[in-house]
Amino acid sequence: MAVVATLSDNETPRASIQPLVDLVAPGMADVNELILSKAGSNVDLIPEIAKHLISSGGKRLRPMLTLAFADMFGYQGSGHVILAASVEFMHTATLLHDDVVDESDMRRGKLAARKLWGNQASVLVGDYLLGQAFKMMVDTGSLEALRILSEASAIIAEGEVLQLGASKNIETTEAEYLRVIEAKTAALFAAAAEVGPEIAGQNDVMRKAARTYGLELGYAFQMVDDALDYGGSSADLGKDVGDDFREGKITLPVVLAVARGTDQDRAFWKRCMEGDNVTDDDLAEAIELLKKFDAIAETVQRARTYGDNALKALDQLPACAHTDALADAVAFCIARVS
Amino acid sequence: MAVVATLSDNETPRASIQPLVDLVAPGMADVNELILSKAGSNVDLIPEIAKHLISSGGKRLRPMLTLAFADMFGYQGSGHVILAASVEFMHTATLLHDDVVDESDMRRGKLAARKLWGNQASVLVGDYLLGQAFKMMVDTGSLEALRILSEASAIIAEGEVLQLGASKNIETTEAEYLRVIEAKTAALFAAAAEVGPEIAGQNDVMRKAARTYGLELGYAFQMVDDALDYGGSSADLGKDVGDDFREGKITLPVVLAVARGTDQDRAFWKRCMEGDNVTDDDLAEAIELLKKFDAIAETVQRARTYGDNALKALDQLPACAHTDALADAVAFCIARVS
Repeated sequence: MAVVATLSDNETPRASIQPLVDLVAPGMADVNELILSKAGSNVDLIPEIAKHLISSGGKRLRPMLTLAFADMFGYQGSGHVILAASVEFMHTATLLHDDVVDESDMRRGKLAARKLWGNQASVLVGDYLLGQAFKMMVDTGSLEALRILSEASAIIAEGEVLQLGASKNIETTEAEYLRVIEAKTAALFAAAAEVGPEIAGQNDVMRKAARTYGLELGYAFQMVDDALDYGGSSADLGKDVGDDFREGKITLPVVLAVARGTDQDRAFWKRCMEGDNVTDDDLAEAIELLKKFDAIAETVQRARTYGDNALKALDQLPACAHTDALADAVAFCIARVS
Repeated sequence: MAVVATLSDNETPRASIQPLVDLVAPGMADVNELILSKAGSNVDLIPEIAKHLISSGGKRLRPMLTLAFADMFGYQGSGHVILAASVEFMHTATLLHDDVVDESDMRRGKLAARKLWGNQASVLVGDYLLGQAFKMMVDTGSLEALRILSEASAIIAEGEVLQLGASKNIETTEAEYLRVIEAKTAALFAAAAEVGPEIAGQNDVMRKAARTYGLELGYAFQMVDDALDYGGSSADLGKDVGDDFREGKITLPVVLAVARGTDQDRAFWKRCMEGDNVTDDDLAEAIELLKKFDAIAETVQRARTYGDNALKALDQLPACAHTDALADAVAFCIARVS
């Protein structure tokens, strides 16, 4: 069994994604090759958009989880590579549809696909990638992996609809926020992790531990993302800061600040979240309010708690280079904001 | 083996969908119940939109194919009901996304979901229904059915992207038109039919015959739809006429008329297909041109040829009330336009 550390211990895992990247490098090379071949189509627009997204430099954390959780059990087949590529396709499809729904202009510092090719192509290429993802899963022959990932697919969409309803509504509670991020982020992390031991023929205990790790890491990851949107702990007004604010997306920092603010503060939040024309001054004021009520620090603290739960789940799994690397990955996700 | 008739024979099948509706009525009751239960969600907007679409009165031809092609082999399980509901969910998801892509205002004579709830909800609820469809397919335990339907899912999206590229382009050839309708319509008809014998444990010959029937019927069905958009053979300017024309969608009647027209006619088609503000006078002139070049009559004639191919495929299958009803259904689909 792995040694449990917590993120506030002296024995804090090293905050680095590199050990995980190195361990799964051979598998990820296969995943990347499969992704490029399966994003192909006689219809030119499809590989064009897919390659734009795939080459735009996400960390590919989700497929790395699938590989690591299969590798740690000495899995020798190619099913984990196929499932990892499916997971990345599901994620990419979600990004394409999200950008349409959120009317986003940028994605990972580049123009969003919908700005380059239009909303129509983004919707349809997303659908294509989702179809390809399911086709690939069928290739693994694992009905159980299909069950896990199709369940995640429905939950993600449900979470996005939920988020649409919560959008611009400053009455959103912390519990509602948690439901949204569980569905839109943590569910796919959980599924990506769980299919690893599943394809490696492991029992329910191992599968459940992997799933819990993925789920808790997913929560932590999204909370950190939401803190980073307000500049993180440093709260500098960087160029990628404020997207959620401008879109009226109610994230944990806002939920906490709204709950603690005066009536005047709430009026400010209501105007900004519901309004279409918020200014940079509004954003600066929002960040001041978040600081005043420790809303960013507390968001990061919650993320740490979820990160600790992820580390605890690793304790159920065989102690090995993979569990060490997965512990480092948790610390890395949290450290992005520190 | 069934007796082959053709649509121009004296022994023409009765042009009625009623025999098929009656034969599969018990199974369809189960399908409808399953659809309503699986369209449920804690997120209120999802059942609201799903029920709007599901109750808006499509003929449910696709799920009826699945049931009929399983029933004819005496299938006794519930897998065909689950697959039929999955097929209808896939179709409904496509309609939701299509309306967003086409910027349609109406669907089956009612306001399109995107006009009632917005594009965002339509994209996401479509995704949810697709996720639910795959979850249901997993419930049947048939990897082969999953393969058939996930393949169709990717092909449908590919066809929609292809259609997007052909949109407004009067250089579109008949071969390109056929590729589009094979992908966007015939592929799901084919899959819906093929999973029937598949779930009933039938061999490749039966599966292939069912698939061919579905594919050929799908072509015929779409051609007739495309003819109906210009008022069908009667060419009256009905209130549902001209949607494709106004959206610049290049369908077979237009392909045929463009190929046969003068330079002046081509200039007219180019202006209308590329333009945003076509008038009722333009539509009336388009219908005149279609008549002049027999483009509607020839479209219907092609549909009849595909319909005949569907009837021939039935000949490979056991002669029974189901094959008779499926033959009547072919005649019914063609007769809509006569």
